[in-house]
Amino acid sequence: MKAEIIAVGSELLLGQISNTNARHISAGLAEIGISVHYHTVVGDNADRLGQAIRIAESRSDLLIFTGGLGPTKDDLTKETIARHAGTQLVYDDEALVSIRAWFDRMGREMTENNKKQALILEGSTVLQNHHGMAPGMLFSADGHHYLLLPGPPKEMEPMFTVLAKPLLARLAGFSGPIASRVFRFYGIGEAELEHRMADLLDNQSNPTLAPLASDGEVTIRATAKAATREEAEKLLDGSETEIRKIAGKHLYGYDDETLVSKAASLLIGNGLTISAAESLTAGLFMSELAEQPGISAALAGGVVTYTAQAKQEQLGLPESLLEEKGAVSEETATAMAVAVRGKFGTDFGVGLTGAAGPDPHDGKPGGTVWIAIASGEGIRTRRLLLSGMRNTNRIRAVKAAMHMLINIISETSARSE
Amino acid sequence: MKAEIIAVGSELLLGQISNTNARHISAGLAEIGISVHYHTVVGDNADRLGQAIRIAESRSDLLIFTGGLGPTKDDLTKETIARHAGTQLVYDDEALVSIRAWFDRMGREMTENNKKQALILEGSTVLQNHHGMAPGMLFSADGHHYLLLPGPPKEMEPMFTVLAKPLLARLAGFSGPIASRVFRFYGIGEAELEHRMADLLDNQSNPTLAPLASDGEVTIRATAKAATREEAEKLLDGSETEIRKIAGKHLYGYDDETLVSKAASLLIGNGLTISAAESLTAGLFMSELAEQPGISAALAGGVVTYTAQAKQEQLGLPESLLEEKGAVSEETATAMAVAVRGKFGTDFGVGLTGAAGPDPHDGKPGGTVWIAIASGEGIRTRRLLLSGMRNTNRIRAVKAAMHMLINIISETSARSE
Repeated sequence: MKAEIIAVGSELLLGQISNTNARHISAGLAEIGISVHYHTVVGDNADRLGQAIRIAESRSDLLIFTGGLGPTKDDLTKETIARHAGTQLVYDDEALVSIRAWFDRMGREMTENNKKQALILEGSTVLQNHHGMAPGMLFSADGHHYLLLPGPPKEMEPMFTVLAKPLLARLAGFSGPIASRVFRFYGIGEAELEHRMADLLDNQSNPTLAPLASDGEVTIRATAKAATREEAEKLLDGSETEIRKIAGKHLYGYDDETLVSKAASLLIGNGLTISAAESLTAGLFMSELAEQPGISAALAGGVVTYTAQAKQEQLGLPESLLEEKGAVSEETATAMAVAVRGKFGTDFGVGLTGAAGPDPHDGKPGGTVWIAIASGEGIRTRRLLLSGMRNTNRIRAVKAAMHMLINIISETSARSE
Repeated sequence: MKAEIIAVGSELLLGQISNTNARHISAGLAEIGISVHYHTVVGDNADRLGQAIRIAESRSDLLIFTGGLGPTKDDLTKETIARHAGTQLVYDDEALVSIRAWFDRMGREMTENNKKQALILEGSTVLQNHHGMAPGMLFSADGHHYLLLPGPPKEMEPMFTVLAKPLLARLAGFSGPIASRVFRFYGIGEAELEHRMADLLDNQSNPTLAPLASDGEVTIRATAKAATREEAEKLLDGSETEIRKIAGKHLYGYDDETLVSKAASLLIGNGLTISAAESLTAGLFMSELAEQPGISAALAGGVVTYTAQAKQEQLGLPESLLEEKGAVSEETATAMAVAVRGKFGTDFGVGLTGAAGPDPHDGKPGGTVWIAIASGEGIRTRRLLLSGMRNTNRIRAVKAAMHMLINIISETSARSE
């Protein structure tokens, strides 16, 4: 089965947003053995969309559309496909009810044009939208399959993964003999990792190994094909053994695991509690933890002390410490960690202070960060010298703190076993 | 001049990376009055690339290719275009010298396949690559223009902006008279805004008006063409007057301004200070403010009180309040705002509490959020009933709080004028 992804939306052609939907869908199709041969982007224009459909039908079996399902006159994906395929648009009752409910919840009046979102191609399988209003649908005619998905990634991604992908896997007669594993590294650059893995990357075709770098982390996606899922997993185990030999120290997680989710699950799993005192990160460390489900068992709270005055008044740091050692120092990070741990009565207290940059702060060059983690076992500290932009540095500081926390909990639980 | 952007690379069809190049080029072309009608992505396959070229020639004047200029066998953009156009590939001496120099700098031996990168389409204008090895080129034949650019964004972006864009502007006879303005709205849905603007959207062709929705905000990009920049700006002023009549209450900013940057600049500009007590947002409100340059003059800090115990111990909220009214209540949000304002001695104190969802919290349905802002003028509160995922709701709660803050400061400074 050959697939083509057609994104509909003039905002893409004006360069206002990137076509991240095509990426998400392509990655999902690769997992179920469906080859994507083309991506097409076309504007909110019925003639050009109609031509794009004809071209796609001449070369692809499965046409996946994103966007153009909304309430406005510019949204014309359904209408164009209906005309093209000689099919009616009919109201889907469930979608209509759910759109009304959405407006009720918002306490807002539903305008007439919103009803348009509940129209579906007659005879299609409806994919309800649990994160927005416009439903998706899968429609088949004359040997072609048409999957229509909403444009906003927050609606499209869960609808594709949860509802559409299993349907497509069945359509494509996919029985599962592809397995993939993402290896996640921290503390090693992409170039260095690729250099160490050069032989492996050059000589391995099954599993294939694809490195990717972002924001101080590197991942390698390994994808294996075999007659059975077990055999594919066994091939992945083989790659993992090789990868561990080369960079095992830096491998911290798999697949969708992130430094934050790993730290959160270690905290929750070990019944540990945490608080933080944040200066340059100003709440980002706690906020990232709070994104994780179940975190209320572990995260008590903390203090943001952005100014020197706040550090003194809220955490009781002596003025002399700040004057002698400075706000960006190992001693200040340590005092922050110890103070917040005491204040909140938690197992861990984290102190984060630094000069986010680009300008120096308190005599320290931009990018200098001190992290301290206080626990019943003592204090651990780390200095970072970062060279990114202001917000990149704040994000990297949080990642480094999560990584320290992962190491401390892992070591402690290894010792106690 | 109609343009089409053709990205060549199987990694795009496998979903390993997004086609950010198309976004970058599209935005640049919009600035010089060249309309992009299609984006196409095709794999490293000569037949399919050849077909994509034929289709593009039938509907576009300018074909812009990204990717496939590298040293490997998979890189076949130049070769395919040469065969298609009946043109020779010849070595460009300057490119050859620069590739050799690149290897010298790296202290590495230049392998033979790297010479391939210095091949250009005979008769084309060469665009030297100052951030990598493969040069780009602009080639014209039979009424079509072919611009070839490297795939890595770090090489492509400067080459496009600095070298290619001026050439294309000249080709398209563009003399500079396009201006655009982005209007940013909050507190009004895309459908509602378009409904109110229906006449304007239907009847206006210069400026063109393009709405876009994301994360609880809506923007409208107005783009005007005129003989001079002043005239184009005057046309935009005219649209703005109309837009203000229709939805002026919801228009909060322009261009790259966001709710956060606007709130931060109002705080800093008016010499006002702020602190926050955050529960469901767990530091996100403060962290977002801290991303803004110069914020240390305004943001003192705050407290994250994720648990009921922390709310009592760190903010002094009475146990009876939490028991009678609950953690998710107007009274608790207000008490948090007042307490943190007092603790940090700031002009504003913000309290954020709620059930991030999807599960109910403390008897309130998921998505219920209470925001309170305390100032010398009194307390303002707002309830939100959100229907998104956990983290969407946290982000929307922060946006709502920023918007409240913008309104309070704007009203106060308007009154004092």
